[in-house]
Amino acid sequence: MKYHETSLQVRFYEVDSYGVVWHGHYVGWFEAGRNDLTQRYQMGPLQLKERSFLAPVVELNCQFKLPATFGNSVVVQTTMERTEVAKLIFRYRVLDQENGKVLATGFTTHVLTDLKGNLLYRVPQEVLERIEAMRKYLEV
Amino acid sequence: MKYHETSLQVRFYEVDSYGVVWHGHYVGWFEAGRNDLTQRYQMGPLQLKERSFLAPVVELNCQFKLPATFGNSVVVQTTMERTEVAKLIFRYRVLDQENGKVLATGFTTHVLTDLKGNLLYRVPQEVLERIEAMRKYLEV
Amino acid sequence: MKYHETSLQVRFYEVDSYGVVWHGHYVGWFEAGRNDLTQRYQMGPLQLKERSFLAPVVELNCQFKLPATFGNSVVVQTTMERTEVAKLIFRYRVLDQENGKVLATGFTTHVLTDLKGNLLYRVPQEVLERIEAMRKYLEV
Amino acid sequence: MKYHETSLQVRFYEVDSYGVVWHGHYVGWFEAGRNDLTQRYQMGPLQLKERSFLAPVVELNCQFKLPATFGNSVVVQTTMERTEVAKLIFRYRVLDQENGKVLATGFTTHVLTDLKGNLLYRVPQEVLERIEAMRKYLEV
Repeated sequence: MKYHETSLQVRFYEVDSYGVVWHGHYVGWFEAGRNDLTQRYQMGPLQLKERSFLAPVVELNCQFKLPATFGNSVVVQTTMERTEVAKLIFRYRVLDQENGKVLATGFTTHVLTDLKGNLLYRVPQEVLERIEAMRKYLEV
Repeated sequence: MKYHETSLQVRFYEVDSYGVVWHGHYVGWFEAGRNDLTQRYQMGPLQLKERSFLAPVVELNCQFKLPATFGNSVVVQTTMERTEVAKLIFRYRVLDQENGKVLATGFTTHVLTDLKGNLLYRVPQEVLERIEAMRKYLEV
Repeated sequence: MKYHETSLQVRFYEVDSYGVVWHGHYVGWFEAGRNDLTQRYQMGPLQLKERSFLAPVVELNCQFKLPATFGNSVVVQTTMERTEVAKLIFRYRVLDQENGKVLATGFTTHVLTDLKGNLLYRVPQEVLERIEAMRKYLEV
Repeated sequence: MKYHETSLQVRFYEVDSYGVVWHGHYVGWFEAGRNDLTQRYQMGPLQLKERSFLAPVVELNCQFKLPATFGNSVVVQTTMERTEVAKLIFRYRVLDQENGKVLATGFTTHVLTDLKGNLLYRVPQEVLERIEAMRKYLEV
């Protein structure tokens, strides 16, 4: 399985008074990686919304291995798990761009809903096709 | 002129690696104070939107006097200037709750628009009434 | 087991373009609840640091049940698990203050380190006493 | 006068419930542009701190012209004004990367202090040299 890669610069305001990136900012980084991937397959949050779907996060998990700090560049690696139901699972790794060390790993689970928030139990065909295209890219 | 007061606790993630509240977070505090005031007069951002108005910020100014840090409670003081046109000017002061010292002052200028972002050149009557009620409260 | 309760107002900037609180902001809310609890027992992040300890987050988990939105007040409920090793586990629930519905649940796991980030394998006595005091409060 | 340019992707969490980038996030963008410039001249916030200087923001001003939204790339243009005293003034423009339209302009004023926050009334020679090098780059 392949990871899609997105480079980010640590921003000064992301660093807390312990001198390291505040743990909550990794959630925004995961999301930046995920959107960088999904938008290429017309599956970004606004692209889905235009098609009358939402994909809200229902679970978030993050394991913090090593601190990042100001001046670091990081790479967010994003991939998608194969699931059987109308659920999307993205997995992430955040690496120090310079030395390749893993700073954090995690996943987010998303459900598909209509614009009113009603759960979809089957993935609609038009979404399924995009997911398949994304999988092909990630499996190369 | 009176200031409406809103109390806030400094959050850990608001403190930067210099050990003080990152200057950008005062923008969120100003807004918390402003919304705490305007919502009492049906002038909060979503209340306006329901009436088909938006009040986007067109100018922001902030003067930083003394640092705030984790563990501090602050009071955001908010008031509104009298203006002649379809423009709202809010003024803010952020005080250390314990010793009353002024940490920051600032203002935001807002225009009134319709939902498409077209400028209103006159304040609509229904908004004018709310502004007048808010002013009465602030002038007591 | 008892939950310590901390009230928060949803801030406008915490709401995303889906019209609900962006999922990453719950991490800051969990932390606000945790610090509100731990500071009462001299276990807040800066209080620990003064004693030459840090308690970095090594794992974060959040389950999102129902959306929060602007105008809502929420209650963050925080409690601490009993653990055998030099590890702290805090559990959280975020409730809608008006109707008591659970919006999100989660936990964070923290390790204890010295100021250089070296893991402590035993909880130092002075920290242990504070943890015990906090537990007594949470078990009442 | 030349502007140093820094490209940024709008992040999903930066967009508010009005569907546009929340105004406070421009403060972080200005800072990202400023640090991208100053770090090249050993004037970044941590580089200064290592030399026992801080450069806290004492004034922030931002004029919002046009909204940015998710999916946009922006360019932050940063330059530095020539000042006579121990004060740094940075000026910013945020442009839509695609069409070059100006979304926002602003400035931040910084003072130089020692690590205890005492104002410096003269710019120390080692800082002056870096400022001069930065100016040369900006005046080409």
